[in-house]
This record gives sequence, C-alpha cells and structure tokens, in this order.
Amino acid sequence: MLKGLSKAGLGDVGDLMNFVQLTSKYKFEAIDIDGSSLIEMISSIGLERAKQFFQDHNVQIATFGLSVEWRKSEEEFIKGIKQLVLDAEAASALGCNSCTTYILPSTDYNAAQFMALATRRLRTCAQILGSYGIKLGLEFVGPHHLRTMWENPFIWTMEQTLDFIDAIGEKNVGLLVDAYHCYTTGVNYKDLTKLDVNQIVHVHINDAKAVPIEEVLDNDRLYPGEGVIDLVGFLQALKEIGYVGPVSQEVLTQQVLPESTELLLEKSAQAYATLYRAAGIE
Amino acid sequence: MLKGLSKAGLGDVGDLMNFVQLTSKYKFEAIDIDGSSLIEMISSIGLERAKQFFQDHNVQIATFGLSVEWRKSEEEFIKGIKQLVLDAEAASALGCNSCTTYILPSTDYNAAQFMALATRRLRTCAQILGSYGIKLGLEFVGPHHLRTMWENPFIWTMEQTLDFIDAIGEKNVGLLVDAYHCYTTGVNYKDLTKLDVNQIVHVHINDAKAVPIEEVLDNDRLYPGEGVIDLVGFLQALKEIGYVGPVSQEVLTQQVLPESTELLLEKSAQAYATLYRAAGIE
Amino acid sequence: MLKGLSKAGLGDVGDLMNFVQLTSKYKFEAIDIDGSSLIEMISSIGLERAKQFFQDHNVQIATFGLSVEWRKSEEEFIKGIKQLVLDAEAASALGCNSCTTYILPSTDYNAAQFMALATRRLRTCAQILGSYGIKLGLEFVGPHHLRTMWENPFIWTMEQTLDFIDAIGEKNVGLLVDAYHCYTTGVNYKDLTKLDVNQIVHVHINDAKAVPIEEVLDNDRLYPGEGVIDLVGFLQALKEIGYVGPVSQEVLTQQVLPESTELLLEKSAQAYATLYRAAGIE
Amino acid sequence: MLKGLSKAGLGDVGDLMNFVQLTSKYKFEAIDIDGSSLIEMISSIGLERAKQFFQDHNVQIATFGLSVEWRKSEEEFIKGIKQLVLDAEAASALGCNSCTTYILPSTDYNAAQFMALATRRLRTCAQILGSYGIKLGLEFVGPHHLRTMWENPFIWTMEQTLDFIDAIGEKNVGLLVDAYHCYTTGVNYKDLTKLDVNQIVHVHINDAKAVPIEEVLDNDRLYPGEGVIDLVGFLQALKEIGYVGPVSQEVLTQQVLPESTELLLEKSAQAYATLYRAAGIE
Repeated sequence: MLKGLSKAGLGDVGDLMNFVQLTSKYKFEAIDIDGSSLIEMISSIGLERAKQFFQDHNVQIATFGLSVEWRKSEEEFIKGIKQLVLDAEAASALGCNSCTTYILPSTDYNAAQFMALATRRLRTCAQILGSYGIKLGLEFVGPHHLRTMWENPFIWTMEQTLDFIDAIGEKNVGLLVDAYHCYTTGVNYKDLTKLDVNQIVHVHINDAKAVPIEEVLDNDRLYPGEGVIDLVGFLQALKEIGYVGPVSQEVLTQQVLPESTELLLEKSAQAYATLYRAAGIE
Repeated sequence: MLKGLSKAGLGDVGDLMNFVQLTSKYKFEAIDIDGSSLIEMISSIGLERAKQFFQDHNVQIATFGLSVEWRKSEEEFIKGIKQLVLDAEAASALGCNSCTTYILPSTDYNAAQFMALATRRLRTCAQILGSYGIKLGLEFVGPHHLRTMWENPFIWTMEQTLDFIDAIGEKNVGLLVDAYHCYTTGVNYKDLTKLDVNQIVHVHINDAKAVPIEEVLDNDRLYPGEGVIDLVGFLQALKEIGYVGPVSQEVLTQQVLPESTELLLEKSAQAYATLYRAAGIE
Repeated sequence: MLKGLSKAGLGDVGDLMNFVQLTSKYKFEAIDIDGSSLIEMISSIGLERAKQFFQDHNVQIATFGLSVEWRKSEEEFIKGIKQLVLDAEAASALGCNSCTTYILPSTDYNAAQFMALATRRLRTCAQILGSYGIKLGLEFVGPHHLRTMWENPFIWTMEQTLDFIDAIGEKNVGLLVDAYHCYTTGVNYKDLTKLDVNQIVHVHINDAKAVPIEEVLDNDRLYPGEGVIDLVGFLQALKEIGYVGPVSQEVLTQQVLPESTELLLEKSAQAYATLYRAAGIE
Repeated sequence: MLKGLSKAGLGDVGDLMNFVQLTSKYKFEAIDIDGSSLIEMISSIGLERAKQFFQDHNVQIATFGLSVEWRKSEEEFIKGIKQLVLDAEAASALGCNSCTTYILPSTDYNAAQFMALATRRLRTCAQILGSYGIKLGLEFVGPHHLRTMWENPFIWTMEQTLDFIDAIGEKNVGLLVDAYHCYTTGVNYKDLTKLDVNQIVHVHINDAKAVPIEEVLDNDRLYPGEGVIDLVGFLQALKEIGYVGPVSQEVLTQQVLPESTELLLEKSAQAYATLYRAAGIE
C-alpha cells in the first residue's frame, strides 16, 4: 500500500510542486489533490515536465476531489460538469485514475428525493470519469454530530453506501474507506474483509480521541497512531483482501496545528512506518 | 383514450373471462389486471383462444400489476423475479405492454437507503420487462394520511417521482398518473401539460369527496364524476399532450359498495361518456 | 415542422450571425450548426445578446454536429470529450437540445469490433449530452457507393440503426431521418409511420437525381423538389406520427453551385412552401 | 485455483449426481454444468439435500451454460428468458455465481448489426443474472477454421471480447479464458497478466495437437498436458494476477474417446496435479 498525504492538518504546504517535494522528502508516495492544482501545474510547466516532476519525486496522484457540486441545485450541478472534464483530463494525463467525494450524513432536502437526484448526478459524473479510465470513490462519513446537522438523516454506513453504489449502477464506482468513518460507524475488521478489493477506490487513515464514539467530531482528528482507532487491524484487513493502493492521511483539525509542517510530516512518516510494520505491510 | 376498468370498487366481477365480458358489455375497452389471472387464463384455454377472446370482446389489457415485492427484504425481492418473468411473458403474449406499481409515501426504512434499494430493484424489474417490450409505470400516491403511516417520509409528488424515474435510468420507465393523487398533491392542468406524452405509461381516474384535501383518504374514493376533482380538466390536459392510451377507474372503497356490479358499471359507463364528451375526447 | 437550413450547398453564408440573418430573411426557422460557431458567438457578444439575437430573428438552433471523433483511435476519441462538453454547454445555453452525427456505411476496422467500440463511445457521448438535456441523433447513410468505400460493410439501414440505438441503450438517443438516405435504402412511407415520434431527433430533406438508386451519390444532391424523391409523402409520414421538430435541408454537392446564396435561399424557401402545402403542414 | 471438470471428452458420466461423485472421487473440486440438470436435481431430491450433496462431495458448481439463444432470431431470444431465470434461480440457490457462453467467430448475419443485437441481448441476460448475484463470462473462440465457417467474420480475440464487454456495459460481465483459444489467437503470458483478475469469470484448460496453429480444430482437443500448449505458463499468469477460481477442462473431441471415463479422470487428475505443481499452485 502506498503511503499517501492530503493537505489536511499539515499547515501550509505551499503550491503543488512544493507539496510534492515535501511528500517525497518524507518518503510518502502519493497525494490527494484537487483537479485545479493539476491543471494549473500543467498550464504552468507543461504536461511532459509535470509528469517528469512527479516521476522524479516518486510521487503519484492518489486521487483528486470531485469538484462538481452534486448536493445542491440542478443548475449548480450542470455548471460543474465542464470543470469535471477539465479535472479528469488533467488527472488522467498525469496517470491518476481515481476521483473521490464524500457523502454528508444529513441533508436539508427530502432524503429520498435527494438520494434519487444524487444517484442520477453521480452516475453522470461516473460516466464522464469512466471515459477517462477514472474511478469514482464515495466516502461515507460517520461522526454522529453530522447526522443531525441538517434536517433529514441521509446515509452514513458502509452498507448504505454500497446500496448507493448499486443504485448508481456504474462499474467504476466504489468506496473511499476512511478509518475514522469506519470507527464512528462500527465497521470492524470482519466487515472490511468481506469487501472485494475492487470495491475500494481509495483509503484514508486518521485517528480519534478517546471520547465516547457518539462525541467524536469530524474536524477533531488526530494523526495516525495518536488515538484509539485500531489502525493496525484496519490495515491488516485491507491487506488480507489484497488492497495495494494508496492510504492517505486526512487529519481535519479545528485549528491549525502549532507544529511546523516538516515536524508534522516527520511525525506522520514515523507513524506510518510503525503501523505498516505492525500490520505486516512491506 | 381507451376507457378502462380495474376491479376495484366493482364488487364481484367473477373470473377474468367474466370480467372481460362485463367490460365489453358496458363498452369499456381495457382492463387493469394481475399477471396471475393472465397466466391462469392461458393455461386454462390456451394462448390462441385467450387472444381471440380479448379480441372478440374488443377489450385490451391496459396494464398488469408488478408482482415483485420491491418494498421489503432483498430475499423477497429476488424470490419474486421468476413470477415477474412469467407475468411478463403472459402479458406480452396477450399484447399488453404496460406493467405498473405504486409508491407508498412513507416507509419504515431509512428513506435514503430505501430509495437506493428501490432504484436498483425497479431498474432490474424494468430491464426484465423491457426485454419483453413492456413499460413500467410508477404511481405516486398522494393522500396525506399515508405520508405518516410509516416512520419516515418517502416521496409522493410527481416531480419526486420523475426524479426517481431518472435515478432508475431505464428508458421504459414512466408515470402512472392518477387523478386522485394529482388532486391530493396539487398537480394541476398546467403541470400535466408540461409532461411529454411518452413519460406517461398509464392513467387512472377516480373522484374525491368534498373534504379538506388533507383529509382525503386513499381508500375512500368516489366514482368518476361524483366528487370534486376536475376530471374534465385532467382529461383535457392529457388530450392536449397527445395521450391516447387507457384511462382506468380504480375506485378503492372502505366497504363493498351496496350497488350491484352491473349497476356500478352502468353508472361508470355514463360518467365516462359524460366526461369524455366534456373533455372533447372522441 | 420548422423549416431548417444547414450551410451545405448554400455557398458562402458568412459567419454565424450572418447565417442567422439570411435564415431569418427567407423565413427559415432553424439552423444546423457546429458547436464551435456557437462558442465563438457567445465569446464574441456574450450569452445574453446571443440568445436575444436568435430570438430577434426567430431562428432556433435545430442541432449541432457531434465534434467527437468516434470513428478512429481511442486516443482521438478521448481527446474530443472536452470539446463535446464545451459544445454542449454552449448549445444548451442557447436552447438547443439536439446533437447529431452520421454513420458511415463501411469501415476499415473489423465491423463487429467497431460496432462494439462505437456503441461504447456513443454511449459516453449520449451520457454527457444527456446531462445537458440534449438528445443524440444518429443518421444512417444510404448511398450505395459508400458501402464499399472502406474495407468492411458496416450498417446503413434504419432497422440496423435502431438496433445500434438499442445497443447504446441510453434514452436520449434516436434517429436523424434524412430523406436522401431513406430513398437510397428503400425506407418508405409505411416504414416511417411505424416509428414512434420520440425516436426521431432530427430530420433532413434533400432531393436525388433521376439515376438508378444504386448510382445515387452522397455528394450529388439536389434541392428539395428538384429531384425524384417523394418528399411530400416523406413529410406526410412524419406529420402522421406527430413530428413537429425541424426539417433541415442539407444539399451536399460536388462543386459550389453557380447561383448566389440569396438566390439559392429563395429557391429553397419556395420549395419548402410548396412541399409543406402539399403535405398539409401548417 | 479449483480443479474443475466439464462433461466434454469424459464419455458417459451419468446423471448429475453421478458426475458429482466421479468429480469428487478424483479430487476435482468444481464442475461446469447446464442449468437444466440443476433444476432437475433440485426437483428430484429437494434444494436442501442437493446443497448437502454438493457439500458432502466437496464439489462446487463452477459455472452453468447460458441457455438463452442469443445468436438467432429475436423471437427465440425472448423465448429463452424464462429458462434463464429458472436456471439462475437454481444455480444461485446452489451457490453458483457464474454463467458462461461462447462467441462464434463468424456469423451469417451482417457482423456489425449482429454485434449491436448481441450487445443488447447479452446485456439483458447480464442484468437478469446480476439480480441473482451471478456473473456472465464470455468465451472468445480461436480456431481459425471457425472464422470462415459462416459468411462474415465476427470477433475472436481477447481484445475484441473486452471491447464487446465494454459495449455491454454491465459490471457483472467478464471473460471466460480458455487456454485453447488463447493458444489459437496468440494470447501470451504477458497479455494475460495485463488483465485485472476481476475481469475473469471462468477458466478452461485443454491441450492442442502439434499441428500448425492455423490447422488446430475446435473439436480436436487433447487432455491437459498431452499437447503443445504452455499450460504451466498459462496457469502461472493467472496465479500472478491473483486468480483463485475454477479451472475446468473441456476436452471437445471428434469421437468418443476409447478409454473408460474413470481412466480418463485418473489421467486428467494426474495431469492437473503435475501442472499445478509446476505452476506453483497449491
């Protein structure tokens, strides 16, 4: 499994090229990034040099975020399609075949109707991504406080998300499995090993504070290894089913952390090394 | 538009052949029926004689009800697929190209997850029906009391149902438009004329008592023309967009009506004649 | 039915705005155009003024040509997706909901494999177009000489094209029915009236020289009314099934015609008037 | 990988229960069978006893043949859907999640149109199978003499079959990879290792006579290990990409072989043991 980074919780990592250099310096192998940064980099130094830059630093693009606004009005949705195509073209040119988005666990819309709309809209996104050979990963979001943040409960479990994926019905749609959301929804080792590896598009790891699960906040995450989640078991389950893709940390925090970016990266690199070793991952 | 009958509210119409004879006697031209009755008739008198019988009586099969249980467990759903195929084969052999089901406006399941499941299941049904050249019509159900009969609100408006149809994503899925449900959800003449005629799979007419709309009960319907619904406007809207298919009455009542079946049919035939004339339908 | 023009056979019609003015001057109501011209017009005078310009001239955009290269390499196909999205966005902003492409009746590829590739590629195009509410019309191409122009026979009949559309399997895909191709493939009045009107995305009319059908050349067309095709019957069949969309002329010729553009437009306007009158079209 | 048997080339293996007993006796672990035999067994001894019987003999159902006639008229195709559902229900009840069919490399139909028809028909089959959790495997057929047996060339390579699968567009459709057809179409070790394991639904092994590849006949196969195909390399490639499903022999021969069924099974069991050992498969 590739060690991956997102920008979350790292402080100021600079522009994309700087972020890649930092990623490389601390022996991470992949990044989660937005499509706009990729487009900007290509337009700034050209596609060939951009490819070379990633290659020289031994860094891959793990995934890019779905920029389309599929949670609001039809008008906003349609407006976003062009950007999706631009993102997909740039990402695919740079060898990335994964795009991801998260599902908020409540909504101000009628939940059933919103599921119908979301199914059709994400199908359209998946179809467009599919034409570039890109998969779409859906991230279920577990923290309990978000389940009542908007008027109506939507979905937040892995099983519901798999039903959502079936409703979408496109072969390039799968899960983004995040350890934080597994923890807050009670997904255990055994649940994970029941997955077929090709149902997984991307993986996130984070850690949680030692508070009752119902009180775990979405934007109050710890660095891997600093909290109470059994990340070794999590990684072992993924290993057992043959997952070899990227595992990116995404440490959403309420305030910018006081440590320097480089210190945080060093800490994280050590945590990954420890976890991978404990999980028997080369 | 073809004048159609369902068995609802007619008392005992006997077996299918008797029902067809009664339908014919009162100059109705189409019936809503279940697939099992069709299979039974074919197995009893043979396909060719069954076809001839319908033809001799100038009666068509407007639609058959979807027998698959798509609202409960996955196991029950899968068990019903075989019967669906048998129904579809029989119906299609008898020249029927329409199957319909209704959507209850509330559910004990998580509404969003149930929409995901329902989308996938009705897609499967639509695909199977499609292989026999049969359309699937979804009936939104308007009465307010049903919106809280089960734990979570589901969907009940025409617009939501069109979103559901889009989520299913199969080209042979459309609406069953029922005047009673249009009345109880506020669908007016103008809303109906915005539809493309090929979005309509089937039409029901009924009438409603003069009580506040919020108090209209699903199983307390009146014969067409006896209540407060503007059925002439309803039919005119359908005419305006070019609908020429069947319009079946479906008079769900709390008790069996005291009148004889033949009296009820005569009353209904006169009501249809009056309505069609007023709506300018030949 | 709207009287429509394509640029073919009209000589130099100038830029898009000039073409719209000419279209309007001769009482035509719709144009077939490429997406790039629409994008250019919007970027030149702005979307609102562009919409106003079309409205002021009482001209609609009947259809825009599919710019994606779906007949060659996968690489070329994918490269074209971005332009398709730009075209679709521009067209839909200007109220156009139709995109069309033609099917060459022979191919240098293995015909079966090419059908598989074309099915998948046009499905992708249809899905993208569908997200903008745009239909995709496929034009079968009849002239016999093209059936052997490339190594392997592909498809050229209406029935084959309907099978192709079924293989694509998207609900927004239908036919572009061209009188010239109906003539050269023997599609008669009765065949046309068997279509459901929503299977037709767009219509072309042209006329053919009085030579044996096998010798009719694709780029040797006559103006409507000048040749041997029964265009009145063609239009009557379309009228009978309820077609009310655009009917565009597309007069492909081997040389630029000697008459001036305005003379050609006047001739065509008269021909349309005569044909429409004879076919009983208002 | 499971050692599997089909009935081909084994002489008279008796009824299904007898075949299972023989399979078990020679330590094979899976069988390729037709759905009708499964239905018959269930109707004869009941589902629970049937399941127990397979379990007691440590034999799985590797795959059942697609009984629908998708290569001829539309009427025949539709007639077969009912049987497909019955087959799928029986197979799925017995724990089988794979159905397979072969693609003849030439056809009397227009090849492109037939591809369109086949795409739509196999999509319908895949959708029905999918509702039972069953995959559909397509077997490309390599022997050269079959490429000209019917009027028009169809498809016979793995790459073409993958394009066909993409055209069908359902997520439960993949390849049946047969060593004989790989040999006769030049699919090598490297080609196989480029596959994603979830693209493979089933695997066949057979061996070929030492004649020029162009002269290899479809129904003149040898037992694994008796011919010239590099089956060790074939199995190693499958192992490399993580294939762990059944590998069934299917020895089509021109005459019934002179050896007894048990002798043939013993020979085959030894051949499998040798091959698996050589390929490093436990």
